[in-house]
This record gives sequence, structure tokens and C-alpha cells, in this order.
Amino acid sequence: MSTFELYSDLRVDGTRLWNSIMEMAKIGPGIAGGSRRLALTDEDKQGRELFTQWCADAGCQIKIDDMGNMFATRSGNKGDIAPVTAGSHLDTQPHGGKFDGVYGVLAALEVIRTLNDHGIETHAPVEIVNWTNEEGARFAPAMISSGVYAGLFEKSFAWNRTDVDGKSLKSELERIGYLGEEPCGQHKIGYLLEAHIEQGPILENERKPIGVVTGGQGQRWYDISIAGQDSHAGSTPMPGRKDALVAASNIVAGMQKIANDHPPHGVCTVGEMHVEPNSRNTIPGHIQMTLDIRNPDQGILDQMTREVEQLCHSAAAEQRCELMLEQIWDCPPIVFNEDCIDAVRSAAEHLDLPNMKMVSGAGHDACQASHAIATSMIFVPCEGGLSHNEAEYATPDDLTAGANVLLHAMLALSSLRQ
Amino acid sequence: MSTFELYSDLRVDGTRLWNSIMEMAKIGPGIAGGSRRLALTDEDKQGRELFTQWCADAGCQIKIDDMGNMFATRSGNKGDIAPVTAGSHLDTQPHGGKFDGVYGVLAALEVIRTLNDHGIETHAPVEIVNWTNEEGARFAPAMISSGVYAGLFEKSFAWNRTDVDGKSLKSELERIGYLGEEPCGQHKIGYLLEAHIEQGPILENERKPIGVVTGGQGQRWYDISIAGQDSHAGSTPMPGRKDALVAASNIVAGMQKIANDHPPHGVCTVGEMHVEPNSRNTIPGHIQMTLDIRNPDQGILDQMTREVEQLCHSAAAEQRCELMLEQIWDCPPIVFNEDCIDAVRSAAEHLDLPNMKMVSGAGHDACQASHAIATSMIFVPCEGGLSHNEAEYATPDDLTAGANVLLHAMLALSSLRQ
Repeated sequence: MSTFELYSDLRVDGTRLWNSIMEMAKIGPGIAGGSRRLALTDEDKQGRELFTQWCADAGCQIKIDDMGNMFATRSGNKGDIAPVTAGSHLDTQPHGGKFDGVYGVLAALEVIRTLNDHGIETHAPVEIVNWTNEEGARFAPAMISSGVYAGLFEKSFAWNRTDVDGKSLKSELERIGYLGEEPCGQHKIGYLLEAHIEQGPILENERKPIGVVTGGQGQRWYDISIAGQDSHAGSTPMPGRKDALVAASNIVAGMQKIANDHPPHGVCTVGEMHVEPNSRNTIPGHIQMTLDIRNPDQGILDQMTREVEQLCHSAAAEQRCELMLEQIWDCPPIVFNEDCIDAVRSAAEHLDLPNMKMVSGAGHDACQASHAIATSMIFVPCEGGLSHNEAEYATPDDLTAGANVLLHAMLALSSLRQ
Repeated sequence: MSTFELYSDLRVDGTRLWNSIMEMAKIGPGIAGGSRRLALTDEDKQGRELFTQWCADAGCQIKIDDMGNMFATRSGNKGDIAPVTAGSHLDTQPHGGKFDGVYGVLAALEVIRTLNDHGIETHAPVEIVNWTNEEGARFAPAMISSGVYAGLFEKSFAWNRTDVDGKSLKSELERIGYLGEEPCGQHKIGYLLEAHIEQGPILENERKPIGVVTGGQGQRWYDISIAGQDSHAGSTPMPGRKDALVAASNIVAGMQKIANDHPPHGVCTVGEMHVEPNSRNTIPGHIQMTLDIRNPDQGILDQMTREVEQLCHSAAAEQRCELMLEQIWDCPPIVFNEDCIDAVRSAAEHLDLPNMKMVSGAGHDACQASHAIATSMIFVPCEGGLSHNEAEYATPDDLTAGANVLLHAMLALSSLRQ
């Protein structure tokens, strides 16, 4: 008998989940309805303390590792099995919303509260994780603690990351009392799930409350520098110009075409551009810009990369400019674990929730952790695809649906290894 | 008998001219070989004092008007004729060169020194002008005092311009002792010439030491604002994007094409662009940019303007962005005075100096003053067309050639009205 058949009527308390999210959002309130709870600040400490209190009330045992990752465990009835863990992060962007990260942690808490309400025992322990500094807004790079957990970053590298005031991640962990003793990565996890708002428009457009996440886009990041020549906008005829902004603009226009040529997943973005000397009357002699290429298929990602690199060289040469093109990050496509994907999809099907398989465009702790643990994710829609914005919003119904999928997926996974 | 026939062997002292330019450059020395002598600073005061000393030594009478414009006059032998005036400005950009403006003032001084050396009398008085705050680097807008002189700006508007510290132009005129009594615009000028480095590459490319300037480009300046939507670079598929930077880039690429379609004088430049939120990981939701269109022909300028406006609207619409397009300045093409142009051209021809007619791409005091006075300009090449840069350079030979043209053009004009 499947766990769903056993507990087919079991549902989370959507109101309790919503109220917990609203309660957490009061810590480090944003100026526009969101939250500002940067990693390892006093606000993050307060958020962690509220979370600890809630976990203790739910009968969980709490462990902190030496990256400040928090594991709140509800024992299983077979003590030697690694837990089925779900969670995300409680830190936010400077002008962050109420849901990004927080939902994943509190949906996992709601699962445990629901199990408690109904006195349900599981084989494997069920566990909540709160990863430290997912956002990277205070300490770059993002997803650093799940990265250390999975062996993608050295701990010494992570500990030595500093914020704008020069304070190190390790010293701030110590200061707020969250530098645990257990070495990060040592804590065993059997399966990992992460519920998260989509941060994109696909589920909303498709009118589906559940995204079954099968993996993550591969990404390549570039820093691009274009050197032309500053000259007078009035007295320099067109033929002699070395206009770095024209070269940069042809790259932006061209990268859009390359992405459009690789549907449906291909995306390219220039998010950052600095123009020098940035004066109305002067032809720009220097541009510094970024370029971000993503695709879930390694072959297509490679093809897009070749096309983008060729575009950059020809666009610069056409304007007689010098190009410096540096690939600063190469993250291969991520493929999640089949058992975890199946658990999520089956739960959505059993619950009669319209769902679709999808690829995560954004990076998540689950993507990092998937290098070491069997993992998948559950996406729920967010209004207008908006995120990293205080106006970020998800409906109580969709958040409840996602938590119910998480509940039944965790139950299924908790009996998978016996 | 023409003045050239009378004085066909008369030449300026190129070494004295060069040495004076080098001497002036020592006041407010730049960090990279240029000058930093912003309008109405202590350095500008020192520059004015050195200039005053030189003019007094050359037997000139000096008058200051209430915009701080300085007129140093060598009397003619027919007292009732308005002077033939030449000059430019002694103020510089923050990282300015040694030649921009300074050359025009000191070439006119060299003309008077040469006349003195040879005891030559002129019918009309011959005069040097130093216009206040041409660069606009300290008080915007540029060319403000020649503008007040020609009635393009109200004096009260000009007096109330403030620098970054909130100090007004008038209070700084008072502070350095250059708030004269005569109302600006009252001082009579018969003909006005301005010698200047080209600030562009044309003469250098054409290997001609003299540009006979027939007028100035018409200019239109726009402020452009494009509103799209910030969204996540990873999780927002291409079709739903409102990428303001893509729209802006298509405008930059398109404006280059429009300029190229209107040779040889048509130029378009986007010099300034501000990207928001300017984050690697976020599709830019907002762009603020400038656009500058120039052509010496009113009809072509109008045609280019229509094409650029249409481009902006369609580029924004294509990316589902909102456009705000504001024309903030409309300066019609300037046509210089035929007598003045002839005087310059004839002098160059008499002196066997290769020359070409050209249009000034940049704005100059002469362009402003031409609204009230018969005017022309003499351009000399500058290395690589480089200006507004401490590395700005012109050869002693070219500077001397330009000053000789100025000498003979002023002599011709000084006998024109009797």
C-alpha cells in the first residue's frame, strides 16, 4: 500500500502555513511590504530564533553545522535511515519578498506540524533545513553553504567571504551564535526536496499550481570589456568612430537573437552595463558589461556559447574596438534524481493538482546540494513571475497546494529506503 | 591695394605664441600634462591676471563686462569703427588640454604683438576677447557668456547658475574680481573671428592645416527613458521579457544606421546610458539615455529627427516597453558671415596654406556670438582629433599657420568698414 493510499485524506493546514510566513516576514520588515533579512545580520539571527522556537515546539531536534546550516529533525521509527529533508533559506535580498526561500523552510515545518497533528510515524526521519546565505546579497557568491555541503566550495573560502564592511562570514556566524561544531557536509541526508516560488511566469501563464522540477539550467557567465575611443560627439564623423556603446549594443541585440534561436529554454541576458565616460557629448570609449547564457541541454549550451563568443568578437571588430571576453563561471546543466522527481510528480497527480515538468532557470540550494544528494524541487506560481522584489506574491491556495505535494512526496520518500 | 599685398611678408612669431601657450598651461596644471582651470576658480583668476599683464604689455586697453568677459583693445586709426575682435576662452575642462580655447585667445594676442613689432596701424581697432565659462564644466550650460552677449540667455539666468557647491556664477565673478560694470552685450564688436583646434579628425586625415569654418551643425538633444520590467535572468523565458536594455540597444544600433544614411555631416550619438537595476542576474527594467543628432542642413536634420523618433517608438514597442522621448534642446544650423568666411579663406590662400571649408561639429563661443555679430572661425588640426583630454596636442607649425591666417584675416576685416 502506497503512503498516499495510507494517508489519502491528509492535508497541511494552509492557514497556519500562511500565518507563519507572515509572522516571519515581520522580522526585518521591508519598506514596501517585503523583508530585509540579510544573511547573518541581527535580523537573520531573530529569524533563526523564531524558526528554532517553532521547530522545538514541533518536537524537532536542532543541529547547526559550522556553516550555520540548521537541521531540525523529527525522528523516524527506524533510527538508522538518513532523513528525508526539505527546506530552503530564511535570508532575503535587501529588498526581498516574503516568500523566496522562506516558503520552502516553512512548508517543510508545516509538513512536520501536520504529521504531529495526526500522530503519523515515518520510517525515515523527516527534517527541515535552513541553508545559510543563499541569496549571496551580503556574502558573494550565492548558495555558498549548500555549495560547501556538496563539496563545491572549500569551507575556508566560504568562511573568508566578506561583506561590504569587511566582516567575514565566519566572524558573523560566531557573532550571532550560529557557528556550529559539526563540519558542514557531515550531516547525512537521504533525500532532499525544496519547495520554492517559481520566480518566473511559466506556471502562471500555463495556469498550473505545481511545477515538477527535473533539473536546472546550465549557465555560463561572462565579463565583457570593450575599448573604443572617447571622442567628441559633434566633431567626429561617423566613419572614424570607435564607439564602444555601438559595439555593446550590437552584442545585446545579437544575444537576444541567439537565445530566440534556441527555444524553449535558451535564454541570454545582459543585466549589467557601465558606460564610460557616460557624457551626453562624448562618444563612449569604454563599456563594461556582463552576459549570462543558460540552457538545460549541454550540447545546446555549448552551441549558444560558441555563437555568443563569435558575436562578441565580430561586433567589437566592426566598430574597430578591442574586446576582452572572460568566462567567469561555467555551471553545467543539473539533472535531479528520478526517485525524487517521481515522488513529487506522483504526489501532485494523487492530489489532482495540474502540474508540469519544468527546469529551474534560477539557481537554488537544491541545485547545489544535488551534486551530493538525491534531490528535486516543487515550484508554485508567483504573481507576474516577480521575485527579488518586495511586491513578490504567491496565493495562499498555491502555497498550500505546494506544501501538500511536499507532504506526500516526503511521506513517499520516507518509506522508500527501509 | 589689399591688406595682404601691403603686408604680404608679415608673419606671427610662432615660437612666442607656443611659449605663451605653454606658460598659460602652467596655471592650474593637470596631472597628465594638461590643465585644470575651471571657470572663475582661483586658477582662472590667475590665468586672467597673466593674460591682463600680457595685454597691458602689448599696449591694449582692457574692459570687463558684467559677465566677466574680457576685451583687450588695440586702438585703430579711425576711432569710430567697431573693433575686429578675435578670441576664445581661457577656462578648461577638469582634465582639459593646453589648446582648447587658450589657443584662440593667445593667437589673437600674438596678432596684436606682431602688429606692434612692425608698427602697423589698422583702421578699425583690433581686439582680443576672453569669454567666461565656455566649457560649462563648472557652471552649466556651456558658452554661457557669449550666449548672454548674443541675447540667447537672460543675464539673471546666467548669474544664478551654480556649481556643485552651490556657489553662483555671479558671486564667483565678484569673488575673483571680474564682475565688470558694463552690461554684457553693450560692448560693440564689428567682426568676430575665433581660431580653435578642430577637436575632430578631419583636417588631420585630409592633411590640411587650415579649416575655413562656414557654420555650425544644427543639433537636437533628447532624453530617453525606457520602462520595461525587471525580472529574473534565469527563470524568465525570452518571449515574455520586457528587456529595456534590448530596446535601448536597438535604438543605439539604429541611430548609427540613420547617421550613416546621411553622409558626410550626419552624426548621431548616444553618449550616456544608465541601466537599472544593473545587476548581472536581472533583466534590466529601466534605461535612461541621451541621444544627440547633428546636421548642418536644416532639412536633413529634420529628416534625421523624424527617423530617430520613429526608431525609438518602434524599438520600445518591439520589446513591449514604455517610451518617454523628450527633445530637450533644438539648436538650428549656424551659418557664418560671408565677409568673415572670405577673409579667412583668402588669408589661407594668400599664405599658400592647404585649406578646406568645413562645418563645426562642436559648439563654440563664435557660434553663440554669430547670432549678434558677423563671425567666422579658423580650425587647425589636433592630434587624433583628441580634445577634452590632457593628451590634447597640436603642432607648433599648425598653430602658427592658424595664427598667420588670423593675422591676415583680421587685417583684411579691419579695413573693410571705413
